[in-house]
Amino acid sequence: MPLKEVGRDIHDFAGSRHVTLMANYSEAANRQAIERIAAASPFLVGIERAGNVIPDLSPLDFLHAGPPLAGWHEVCGALRGAVVGTLLRNGSSRDAAAAEDMAAREVRLISAQDRFALGTYGGVITRDTPVLVVENRPAGTRSYAALNEGRGKALRYGSYEAETLKRLDWLEGEFAEILDVAVRRSGGIDLFAILEQALHMGDDGHSRQKAASALFANIVAPFIAETALGKESCARALRFLAQNDIFFLPLTMAAAKSAMLAAEGTADATLVTAIAFNGATGGIRVAGLSGWWTVPVPIARGQFFTGHEAGDAGPVIGDSEIAETMGLGAFAMAGAPALARYVGGSVEEATRLTTEMYGITVAEHPRFKIPALDYRGTPFGIDVRRVAESGVTPVFNTGIAHRTPGIGQIGAGFGRVPLACFKAARTALDALAGKGGRGA
Amino acid sequence: MPLKEVGRDIHDFAGSRHVTLMANYSEAANRQAIERIAAASPFLVGIERAGNVIPDLSPLDFLHAGPPLAGWHEVCGALRGAVVGTLLRNGSSRDAAAAEDMAAREVRLISAQDRFALGTYGGVITRDTPVLVVENRPAGTRSYAALNEGRGKALRYGSYEAETLKRLDWLEGEFAEILDVAVRRSGGIDLFAILEQALHMGDDGHSRQKAASALFANIVAPFIAETALGKESCARALRFLAQNDIFFLPLTMAAAKSAMLAAEGTADATLVTAIAFNGATGGIRVAGLSGWWTVPVPIARGQFFTGHEAGDAGPVIGDSEIAETMGLGAFAMAGAPALARYVGGSVEEATRLTTEMYGITVAEHPRFKIPALDYRGTPFGIDVRRVAESGVTPVFNTGIAHRTPGIGQIGAGFGRVPLACFKAARTALDALAGKGGRGA
Repeated sequence: MPLKEVGRDIHDFAGSRHVTLMANYSEAANRQAIERIAAASPFLVGIERAGNVIPDLSPLDFLHAGPPLAGWHEVCGALRGAVVGTLLRNGSSRDAAAAEDMAAREVRLISAQDRFALGTYGGVITRDTPVLVVENRPAGTRSYAALNEGRGKALRYGSYEAETLKRLDWLEGEFAEILDVAVRRSGGIDLFAILEQALHMGDDGHSRQKAASALFANIVAPFIAETALGKESCARALRFLAQNDIFFLPLTMAAAKSAMLAAEGTADATLVTAIAFNGATGGIRVAGLSGWWTVPVPIARGQFFTGHEAGDAGPVIGDSEIAETMGLGAFAMAGAPALARYVGGSVEEATRLTTEMYGITVAEHPRFKIPALDYRGTPFGIDVRRVAESGVTPVFNTGIAHRTPGIGQIGAGFGRVPLACFKAARTALDALAGKGGRGA
Repeated sequence: MPLKEVGRDIHDFAGSRHVTLMANYSEAANRQAIERIAAASPFLVGIERAGNVIPDLSPLDFLHAGPPLAGWHEVCGALRGAVVGTLLRNGSSRDAAAAEDMAAREVRLISAQDRFALGTYGGVITRDTPVLVVENRPAGTRSYAALNEGRGKALRYGSYEAETLKRLDWLEGEFAEILDVAVRRSGGIDLFAILEQALHMGDDGHSRQKAASALFANIVAPFIAETALGKESCARALRFLAQNDIFFLPLTMAAAKSAMLAAEGTADATLVTAIAFNGATGGIRVAGLSGWWTVPVPIARGQFFTGHEAGDAGPVIGDSEIAETMGLGAFAMAGAPALARYVGGSVEEATRLTTEMYGITVAEHPRFKIPALDYRGTPFGIDVRRVAESGVTPVFNTGIAHRTPGIGQIGAGFGRVPLACFKAARTALDALAGKGGRGA
């Protein structure tokens, strides 16, 4: 896969003619990194309790989305509700007030991506959470994410009503067992093969997962039917999959993470390997640097469901923006006209945003293509230097939850990753240039 | 649903400024007809042997696509292969030569639509064929189509190899039974609800049925799992559904026919209720007229699979163009960018063709909408008068089979319904105008 000519796209980019051609220390490193990411072939291989696949998880360790949090005082409504709901559900606390108290005193908050896992919105992973195990076969990297609960009242949006917790009991019990047996029977499910098709079916691969979820359900259905776990249980699992049009989201996230892990640690590489938010801060990870480069959490523009408005919105949180780093989400929105309206924009704006992203990426994805752009590959491989020098920041799609825990999703929209984290990462990269070192 | 202002769209249409405002005898009738069609809500309610639901089928009656054929000498390769394969499969003939001979002497060819049924491509329906039973609930009209065999070697493309006939044995045996039980358990499956979503997922609702087939498989899967017909049989059925991305095509066709039946016989209505081809002739049906208005079969432009070319193509055949009369297919191709290339065009051309069709239709579909056109309803209700007066003829999508029976599909494309049948129908309508009569 040829990289774009370094510097050229920045010159092509309107308003950026003042930037100079960049130093080329990163070119060979970025080529190596993007080839590793492009070669990824992630498969869902099973479902496991997190404690079995993620080392050293204590009972009160909670993995959350985004960069590390400074403490309970930084925890936003959605994440707060998810922690409280989990403590209620596993019997650690008798009521919400006791759970809040316990959370503030005893819970240890850990950035999920620092453990190769991902949190969807405010969703948490504890030792007992069944996680989707995704393996990027060429690289041997593995990543983990919790099962998607569906729309409406959901723990990941901070809901801990009885109805929410009851659904979770089933999801993490009977359903997880059936799906695990089915997936193991299948020999593994090729996730990028599904995403490739879904991008021809109006999905952006992030906020809209309707086609991918339907295709996944089709593929897994015969293996579910073949399990010896009872036809009522199988029918329940299949009905849940048929009705959950966002089921594939954590699979996309874990697939993208497993792909990015193949490039993390490539010295001098300036490519972004994650974009994530924890409700207080947002940040990026960079292939040639360890750790997170953070900024205060940005505001998302959006479209609100009837009865809600911008003032109700909680802050941005979630690891799902790793999709954008894979050339999905807002980077593929030109192929998702039904989503464009859902997130409050127009088809023209979606196309403009996706097209703009070609200016800050080093390649076009060899498999993720947009029929409406005459099968052009999506913009792929965000370059910290291109962002820092052009001032064009990556766009990301996101759901929007109510700021009060327990209410759930109230809209959807998109935002921009603030420039400051790219500038900080660039300074660090320049300081390390050519030394083969890493720092954070 | 307001009709467009009569005559106005024709004036808006480039190159048609010479036409005069039309006489208005048809306006009230068309309003009545389009409202009946728009109110349609077709459900798949079960699978039945054709002989149980279509009266007076003798053992050697063969229902085929398109207007009636004059005799065996008019039968094209695909239909010839389908008849031969059926005679071999049911034991009527010992080899292909004997089957050809029997077909020429004893088989009775009947236009399927004259019996409220539809033939996909060269596919046939005999007394023993299990058919999808589709009921348009508001009107109480019913229509029938055979199960889709999938891609590759298929009887409907004239293939009668052992492999083709073996798959049919399973399809019309075990699979038909499972699907029937599942569909009856479901209480009926809402077909237009699926098509509405599929048009937001890159389907045109005719040549591309990938989203609709996936959504249908999702919906029916739990009911299949609930049957007591054995987990291996259920898994086989689910695997077939997951792999057959054109399964929904005959469901679209029967749904459209059941909708159109609600308007057929509306005196003075000038709306087209079917477009169909039999390999020798093509024709339309019109709401205010009985019978068919035919022309010699047109040529389709297309894209051929590797190793094939235009000279290999068989003539156009099939009832699936009834989709276009419902505002689907080429009339919705602006929302199907992945199909545009498959049929040999571009996204721009697809959009231009769909947009052109607004000039010859009386309404925009209230449920079938195109996100890429800012959720505009598809052009809906082809008006014989608008076509005859503007000279703009309806576009239709189609598969292309090899002219030699048994080879199967070699490409896909689109064509135009010849103007002559609209002119003939218009003359007949004018002659009957205001008399409340019907003729053919």
